[in-house]
This record gives sequence, C-alpha cells and structure tokens, in this order.
Amino acid sequence: MDAYIRKVNYHETDKMGITHHSNYIKFMEEARLDFLERLGFGYARLESEGIVSPVISIECEYKKPTTFNDIISVEVKITSLKGVRLEVEYVMRRQDEVVCTGKSRHCFLSVTGKPIALKRQFPELYSTLEKFLISEEGL
Amino acid sequence: MDAYIRKVNYHETDKMGITHHSNYIKFMEEARLDFLERLGFGYARLESEGIVSPVISIECEYKKPTTFNDIISVEVKITSLKGVRLEVEYVMRRQDEVVCTGKSRHCFLSVTGKPIALKRQFPELYSTLEKFLISEEGL
Amino acid sequence: MDAYIRKVNYHETDKMGITHHSNYIKFMEEARLDFLERLGFGYARLESEGIVSPVISIECEYKKPTTFNDIISVEVKITSLKGVRLEVEYVMRRQDEVVCTGKSRHCFLSVTGKPIALKRQFPELYSTLEKFLISEEGL
Amino acid sequence: MDAYIRKVNYHETDKMGITHHSNYIKFMEEARLDFLERLGFGYARLESEGIVSPVISIECEYKKPTTFNDIISVEVKITSLKGVRLEVEYVMRRQDEVVCTGKSRHCFLSVTGKPIALKRQFPELYSTLEKFLISEEGL
Repeated sequence: MDAYIRKVNYHETDKMGITHHSNYIKFMEEARLDFLERLGFGYARLESEGIVSPVISIECEYKKPTTFNDIISVEVKITSLKGVRLEVEYVMRRQDEVVCTGKSRHCFLSVTGKPIALKRQFPELYSTLEKFLISEEGL
Repeated sequence: MDAYIRKVNYHETDKMGITHHSNYIKFMEEARLDFLERLGFGYARLESEGIVSPVISIECEYKKPTTFNDIISVEVKITSLKGVRLEVEYVMRRQDEVVCTGKSRHCFLSVTGKPIALKRQFPELYSTLEKFLISEEGL
Repeated sequence: MDAYIRKVNYHETDKMGITHHSNYIKFMEEARLDFLERLGFGYARLESEGIVSPVISIECEYKKPTTFNDIISVEVKITSLKGVRLEVEYVMRRQDEVVCTGKSRHCFLSVTGKPIALKRQFPELYSTLEKFLISEEGL
Repeated sequence: MDAYIRKVNYHETDKMGITHHSNYIKFMEEARLDFLERLGFGYARLESEGIVSPVISIECEYKKPTTFNDIISVEVKITSLKGVRLEVEYVMRRQDEVVCTGKSRHCFLSVTGKPIALKRQFPELYSTLEKFLISEEGL
C-alpha cells in the first residue's frame, strides 16, 4: 500500500529549528488511521461496529532531524496480529532517507472495555489485516 | 482573584525561538477553567449539572514574544454576562510586562444543545459570575 | 487562488468530540504559509531575503463544530497592505458550509527587528501581494 | 528528588475523552528539563556552555487512561550514563497508581554537532548526573 504523505507544519517545529520529537507520534497515528481507512476499516466503521483500539505502547527512534516544509512519507506495516493484540511498525522517510522508525501496540476492545478476539468476532477485519501482516524476520 | 501561573514549555516554542502564537489560546483556556474551578464551578460540576460552554470567538493581541521557561501570569476578567452569553478578557504578563491580551466569548448550552438562560436556570452560577463582572469602562 | 485543503486529525479533537478551537489558529497559519509559497514567496525565500513576518493579532469566530476526518478548505484573502502591515482573512468551510472565519495581522521586520516598508524595500513582494488585495467592502 | 507535578489540560484530551497518548511524550520532556534545572543544569546553562542534548529514542507504555484535571506526578531516573549517551526512565502516577512508564535516550553534542564526552569535557555535569544514576537492576 502507498505510504502516507505528510508535510511538516511551521507550528510543529521547536526552538532548535527542527520538528519537535512528539510530532512523530502524531504522524504515526495519522498514518495508521489512514491505512485502516484505505483497508475499508476507517474510524467511522470501527466505531459503528463498537470496536475501540487504544494504544498500549509506542516506540520511536529518531535518525535524522526534519524541519518545516519537509515532506515525510510514512510506510505502515502490520508485524503482529495475535488474539486481541495488534503491532504496527512505521518507517518515515524524507525522499529516500529514513528519518525516523516507530512501533505501536494496540488491543481491540468493545466500547464497554471488554477484550475482542478479532479472529472470531470480526473475521472480516481480521483477514483483511492478516493479508498485510509481515513477518518481523522479513522486515 | 489571583492570576493563573504558567511556565512556557520547550515543546511550545517554534523555530523562531519563541512561544508559538497558538499556545496563548491554550493558556487562555487553562486560565478560564482554573478561574471557574476556583469559583466552585469547575468542569466536573458544570458537566454534572448538564451545562456545556463552547467557545464562540477568540481574539488575541501579541505584544511581546515569550520563550521557554518564561513564567506567564494570566489575569482573567469577566467583562460581559448577558442572557446566554459570557465574555472573558485576559491579560498575560511576564513579571510586570504585558506580553499578550485576549478575549473569548462563550454561550451556555444544555448537553442537548439548547441555550441556557443562566440567570433563571442556574442563579447560583449567575450571581457568582456577576460578582466578578467588570464593566468594560473600568478596565 | 485555490483554497488550502486540510483533513482534521484524530489528535486534534478534544473530549467534547470536536476539533479543539486552538487548532483553527494552526489551520490559518498553514493556509497563509501555503498561500505565500504558491505566490513564490515561501518561507525559505523570505528567510533568504532576511524578512520575518510575526503575528501581531488573531481573531477567530467559530460557526459550526468540526471533527475527526472532516475535510476543511481554507480560503485566504489579503484585506489590507499598508506600510509595514499586512491583514489576512480566512474562511474555513466543510463542503459549502462555513465552519469558522478568522483574521490575522502581521508586520514585516528585518531579522534584526527593524520594520520593513515592503513597497520600497521589496517591491516585487509588495506588488504580488497587492494583486491579491481585496477591498474589505467587497468581501 | 521530588517528582514533577503536572495537571492534565482540557486541550490535551481527545474524542475518546482521555489524555491523548502523544502528550505523555511532552510530560516526559517537561519532567526531564525540570530535573536538570533543579540539578543546576537548566537549559540556559547548557546552552551557554554550548551543549545540546537531542532525543535519540523514546518509549512509552500506557497503563491506565487519564483525563482532564488529573494530577500526574512524573518520577525521573537516570538509568545509564556512558560515553556520549544518557538514558532516562520515567514513572507517571495519578496518586499511587502508575498510569504510564517511559524511557528516553539522549546524546550530548556541541552546537556544531560534535559528540561530547561528558566525563572528560564537562566533569561537573557528569558527576552530578552520576549521583542520580540508578542501576537498572535496582529499579
């Protein structure tokens, strides 16, 4: 799937003159939600099916600074999908140069907070995500 | 009432080396909610009484730049309270120097979106706010 | 000139379920910088010419709430250009519906903080902006 | 050393009604800079000594959601200090309950981007940080 494209805004820079590191966490969220949208499982649909998917953990490695007007592409990969857990990896590039890599872990819950076994309860979403599952060895 | 005190965070600066101008809008919100809290009408209470108070408009005049670690005091004044409308003014200072002034307008609505005539429906909140009402001439 | 197009991100919503009002100030900045970029006077060029253009004041009227995934178009109009002052107005729409209007005032300064008389010192930028100047009566 | 105390602001919540997960990265930065300030190595001093300390990586585990008006305490621990590298860990609590844990890695650079061997070049800062160094086993 095509990468998510994002221009760095002026208000996202800090006094060091570079993109503040907290913004990459936002870029990852934007790219993940865009990815799900393009799979046909956008926020509105998940919400209407009664699924919420909170963030359990986040990791981010900053390789190169970026700044205002830089165009960042965010590649999204599903690296694990087991039981109620989803693991997503991100590679952020400015042109061909990797500027940041990230990882996020999520679970699937019903709106009342009960864990959802995706494979059994939402087989269509499960099999769609499974198609994009990349073995970590293969990365 | 004492001013609301707020230190500028590093992540609130931009590449010009100063506090990004959008943050003063956040300082105004923080100071207003803190003011209402200290009046005994904090967010939790308003919510439990079924009152929401959206922002209708905002104005901000930037007098002096501020930056990371500056201590900003935000003075809050109620300048108008009529029908379903509330107008609040703000003076932000670094020590004695005025760095920014602002104004916000709000209405009072029920959770279902119906306008609330504060004086009739919530006389206690109305009379509390009225005590802090400052005629615009007196500013 | 075409409006600036911007999708509302999840991280820009607040617990009321709507776009937090401080974000419209950011949308205005993004649209203004994009407008200048398309005029051939992007940030990099202004910087290389030694011009900075701080925000003096901002106004925003919130007409309709927006939320995650809404597509906002921001129309930018130059409404005044006198001496060292520039005034810009913004109309933000979701499809045909106006959701927010705004205004910002700026001055032009050299990097050392001296006011710049655009017409005399940067006639090319002045005449470019002047072409987009809309009399306030005509709005 | 006392924990850094921070109230969650309204503008830091999202439409799920909770503190948006990107804000904890900001809380970690605020706590780290406050910690260094209290050690006598605040931002102004490091800047005047020509030291910058960029973030190399960040990790965050979200244990419990928090929301507007929650008081978060952030405990800061230095867990590694070797060569040009610094590793900091964070425990964020609401009263006694751990809501989030985090880790950040930093390096020390001169303003021109050259790595700084803290022990040799800035022995006072090194020995001050070393006093707060906690072996990871002891956590």
